[in-house]
Amino acid sequence: LDLALILPDDGPRGARLVEALREAILSGRLPLGAKLPASRLLAAQLDLSRGTVVAAYEELISEGYCTARVGDGTFVAVTSRPTPRREAAARIRLSRWGQRVIADSPVSADDQRPRIDFSPGVSPESFPAAALARALRRAVDRIDGMPAVGDPAGSRRLRAALVAHLGRTRGLRADPSQVVVVSGSQQGIDLSARLLLDPDDRLCMEEPGYPRARRAFQAAGATVTPVPIDASGLVTAALPADGARLAYVTPSHQHPTGAVLAPERRLALLQWAEAHDAWILEDDYDSEFRYGGPPLPCLQGLDRSGRCIYAGSLSKLLHPALRVGYLVVPPALVPAVIAAKQTLDQSTSMLTQEALADLFESGEIERHLRRASRAYRARRAQLLAALAATPLPGARVWPLTGGLHVFIELPGIAPTALRRAAERRGLGLVFGDDCFLREQPGTRLILWFGRLPVSAIAPGIAALAAAVGEATVRRLERPSELATTHPQQATAIGVGE
Amino acid sequence: LDLALILPDDGPRGARLVEALREAILSGRLPLGAKLPASRLLAAQLDLSRGTVVAAYEELISEGYCTARVGDGTFVAVTSRPTPRREAAARIRLSRWGQRVIADSPVSADDQRPRIDFSPGVSPESFPAAALARALRRAVDRIDGMPAVGDPAGSRRLRAALVAHLGRTRGLRADPSQVVVVSGSQQGIDLSARLLLDPDDRLCMEEPGYPRARRAFQAAGATVTPVPIDASGLVTAALPADGARLAYVTPSHQHPTGAVLAPERRLALLQWAEAHDAWILEDDYDSEFRYGGPPLPCLQGLDRSGRCIYAGSLSKLLHPALRVGYLVVPPALVPAVIAAKQTLDQSTSMLTQEALADLFESGEIERHLRRASRAYRARRAQLLAALAATPLPGARVWPLTGGLHVFIELPGIAPTALRRAAERRGLGLVFGDDCFLREQPGTRLILWFGRLPVSAIAPGIAALAAAVGEATVRRLERPSELATTHPQQATAIGVGE
Repeated sequence: LDLALILPDDGPRGARLVEALREAILSGRLPLGAKLPASRLLAAQLDLSRGTVVAAYEELISEGYCTARVGDGTFVAVTSRPTPRREAAARIRLSRWGQRVIADSPVSADDQRPRIDFSPGVSPESFPAAALARALRRAVDRIDGMPAVGDPAGSRRLRAALVAHLGRTRGLRADPSQVVVVSGSQQGIDLSARLLLDPDDRLCMEEPGYPRARRAFQAAGATVTPVPIDASGLVTAALPADGARLAYVTPSHQHPTGAVLAPERRLALLQWAEAHDAWILEDDYDSEFRYGGPPLPCLQGLDRSGRCIYAGSLSKLLHPALRVGYLVVPPALVPAVIAAKQTLDQSTSMLTQEALADLFESGEIERHLRRASRAYRARRAQLLAALAATPLPGARVWPLTGGLHVFIELPGIAPTALRRAAERRGLGLVFGDDCFLREQPGTRLILWFGRLPVSAIAPGIAALAAAVGEATVRRLERPSELATTHPQQATAIGVGE
Repeated sequence: LDLALILPDDGPRGARLVEALREAILSGRLPLGAKLPASRLLAAQLDLSRGTVVAAYEELISEGYCTARVGDGTFVAVTSRPTPRREAAARIRLSRWGQRVIADSPVSADDQRPRIDFSPGVSPESFPAAALARALRRAVDRIDGMPAVGDPAGSRRLRAALVAHLGRTRGLRADPSQVVVVSGSQQGIDLSARLLLDPDDRLCMEEPGYPRARRAFQAAGATVTPVPIDASGLVTAALPADGARLAYVTPSHQHPTGAVLAPERRLALLQWAEAHDAWILEDDYDSEFRYGGPPLPCLQGLDRSGRCIYAGSLSKLLHPALRVGYLVVPPALVPAVIAAKQTLDQSTSMLTQEALADLFESGEIERHLRRASRAYRARRAQLLAALAATPLPGARVWPLTGGLHVFIELPGIAPTALRRAAERRGLGLVFGDDCFLREQPGTRLILWFGRLPVSAIAPGIAALAAAVGEATVRRLERPSELATTHPQQATAIGVGE
């Protein structure tokens, strides 16, 4: 009997009860057909006589709000008619952070899944569903031993397992006490931004770069300074000579281009950071998967001056729906990061963390990594073969040395034309145009292949090539129409001709 | 073969390989007993001749780093000797938010579980472990259909289930589109603080109040104005006459006192907010459990001007280790809250959300709520009986009308004396002194009884009464010692005599 009733302050008790029940019916909290509580129970709960409750029910029946069924009870007989709510006349007052966040809010994704979907995701056939379900079951069985106020640094077991795994596979050098488990890498980025950046501080990042990170830095009020990239990654010679507070980088597999930061540039970046007393936030978002050549160790493993914050997640290695990531930070920064995590959301689900610790300790993660690598190698080979067989007109395809996506530049095409042509073909595409701080001519795609069935890759590329061809033709056929209705896009696609 | 090797830039390839392997051994990434990769595989991976790799292995064997076992392979023979890392000489530069967060960081909890633990937690015997594990298993089976970039507003099913549940039990009035799922109520509080408060904005909250919320508001730079409470909750007549940007309140069960905000004060608070264009953040953190009298509907259900943000979580209803909470916000605020959630951490685990949606839809949550209510009623009855049988000397015990804790004021006792006396008796206590913005004399306890076995309650209260008695006696016996070594505490305990 957990129906909340508001009894008005004044009037006889019976009348007040009638009014409260009427309110519950009219507001829809007691919907059509709902059974009213037994009069005896309601009377006991409200400390009324049973007669008062029975009289109130009879009143509601006489008013038509309820009906009685003999031997069964009293039931709501009308459809609710919720009172229209008057919206706040006042303007919505947001903080400066809130104003920045909403100004830069991305358009939410379409819910309908396209026929061939080049959007982010992990390989379903290699996913260790049974092992994860078993590990979760074991964690649920141990839930009573889990603290109500979870350790904001995260599960000790998981932190130890992460350090061992990342030390072996990524050359990370850290003690488990330097790890703070976060709820996905976005939280790691946002936490770093809040902890280290004041409004108007300068932040350097790659151009093109990861738009979700840029949004967090801009929301923090930082001044974002783009640094160009080339085939060897971030052009360290272009780092601002007068320093910055923080440099956000993706050295192992630059987002979105896939460039790998050259060893001499890694040292140059670390020297720049040391010279200017800057932090480096290294986002190692997908370096589990490499195709040829040994994996380059992470920047953090080379850092000798405690300036590097290493961010990663289990979103590519396992699944993004888990929302588990980590920051590995210099020892001197650990207390601040833990205090920040506690203020942000207390801790990341200990249930999920303990299940993941099980998967690491049992070797399941390592076995999964091998299976998933095979799955992605097969997809990558198919993708490269398809792109060779059906080249995309006018495209520049960046090398696919690792990770789960390939970056494609289409300098002569307007995004809208390609979007329409792709939609007609049931193609789901991720456009990389928001990877640039400064507006660029043409368009670019981030083709994610992790989730796509191998059999869909060649048809997908063929459809994409046709869409690109159509978008190109349309441009040539009808430049005047575009110029009239979308002057800015027409300007953009005019470049590169 | 996922060992990351750094080959130095200069020198013959064989010597560079030896150096890289030596580094991996000395850094502990190749630990004692680890097997080196087969020479053929490593040669292929590094694009070296097999002879070069074999020669490098022989060099390491001759240097004593490795041993060969015939027909088996080459193994690491030394214990790692990690290079000591030079810590950053530079000071740790934090943002102003970071400086505020670390200045106010709470002491981390002790890991050792006391013999009788009056700390927060939920009843283990009523926890629906099997149903949750089944629901998680079903969610894992559906994980392939879950988007890589989860909907920042949360699972549609869970939002609909929450609105139905809260409408029925709490009188909440909202459409599912007004719900944003967050990672526990702390995230809901922090998100609201960031979105609505600029540095130096005024924030009102109850005094005493919820310290974790206060920390988030203070970290945001807000000026916290305490508003006193009495037996009828927040003293609305004491709300600042010139308004505030936000009022944070716990009207259904004031934290920590347990006072229920009187109906006329609810209206007064809403009127004050409307008059001053202020937001109300209503934290309905534990109102699932009430002992006698109908549950009072939440403030949000009375709000007619779209100023009320309703925050809650599944931490009491199910378990805090799940880290799932929710904000229900006025329609006009929905886009900003979604954009903020996306910037904070993208979304809350869709795996957990879908499992919880299952539990709501199958009626499991409702059944659990009934079982848990019975469990807590039994604990509460035992606790009240124990406090009646063994009164705590000099204590003021607040009424226990709902929730999972009771607030006890001990005006004549110093926290340190009671802490020592409780530790000697194996009692785990939560001190409520940080619930006050302004330092108070004496001490107070928040006795959580949700997790404690019924059989432990009477012995726990007996031990607590003895500890309180001892702390009182000690004070009377040795006031001079306290006055000498802890002048501030001595002053504090002097008050109230």
